[in-house]
Amino acid sequence: MSLNIVLIEPEIPNNTGNIGRLALASGSHLHLVKPFGFKIDDTRLKRAGLDYWQHLSITYYENIDEFFSINKDKNMAFLSSHGTTNHWDIPFESDMFLIFGKESVGLPKTIIEKHSDKLFKIPLYSKHVRSLNLANAVSIVIYEGLKNI
Amino acid sequence: MSLNIVLIEPEIPNNTGNIGRLALASGSHLHLVKPFGFKIDDTRLKRAGLDYWQHLSITYYENIDEFFSINKDKNMAFLSSHGTTNHWDIPFESDMFLIFGKESVGLPKTIIEKHSDKLFKIPLYSKHVRSLNLANAVSIVIYEGLKNI
Repeated sequence: MSLNIVLIEPEIPNNTGNIGRLALASGSHLHLVKPFGFKIDDTRLKRAGLDYWQHLSITYYENIDEFFSINKDKNMAFLSSHGTTNHWDIPFESDMFLIFGKESVGLPKTIIEKHSDKLFKIPLYSKHVRSLNLANAVSIVIYEGLKNI
Repeated sequence: MSLNIVLIEPEIPNNTGNIGRLALASGSHLHLVKPFGFKIDDTRLKRAGLDYWQHLSITYYENIDEFFSINKDKNMAFLSSHGTTNHWDIPFESDMFLIFGKESVGLPKTIIEKHSDKLFKIPLYSKHVRSLNLANAVSIVIYEGLKNI
């Protein structure tokens, strides 16, 4: 009874750190797809106070193709501001993969086009913001999912 | 049909920035109770790229007493790791005040004791993390509320 958080090419270390904390707190497995906008090594993690990182259940991938090759049979939902269905309507089930793009531009166009039937958005109520902070978005979707699995 | 986000003495500017973005995105009113662990002024906001800040609906309070004096008749829920009821069970209604403590120690003991019947927690599933990042916690509660009002 758990969920999978997938970050495709995350750029901002502070977001990935917060999402790691969220993954641990929510009992989720974290999948990180390279390239990253930062380096993950023991010295940096310690300096950032991420002493919980060692307890994380985490898988690293060299690139997007490797991620989809290894997980091709998984049940996935893709989060994007291009989604037309709200995240509240994701058909959550245990072991589901919830997939998030990079901070600057979201998911690659190729993924959005290929999985357009599984594209969900968090509804926004202002024209002055285009998106939420990535860690906030992941938090919203994961806790919505936890209630439903 | 909106919610109120209340931050009591927030310490980390990046969190308050992200929560401002969330408040705008979710159509919520933001209440910030001093003292803060940072300064809010136009130069700093511009430098941090928070150009959406001008669009926020926001109220500042000099201290906790002023906040409770002005809002004594409001319907409130308090978020704390000391809560015994999950945030999913908050009796959300429009115009509700959702109240969050500071990053380091949460809500003051006096508030927790006085409002123990309105104390809610976000459930955590690991003994290795004691709490979520503040902006992530606010995000989870507000989007849970938006679905229910």
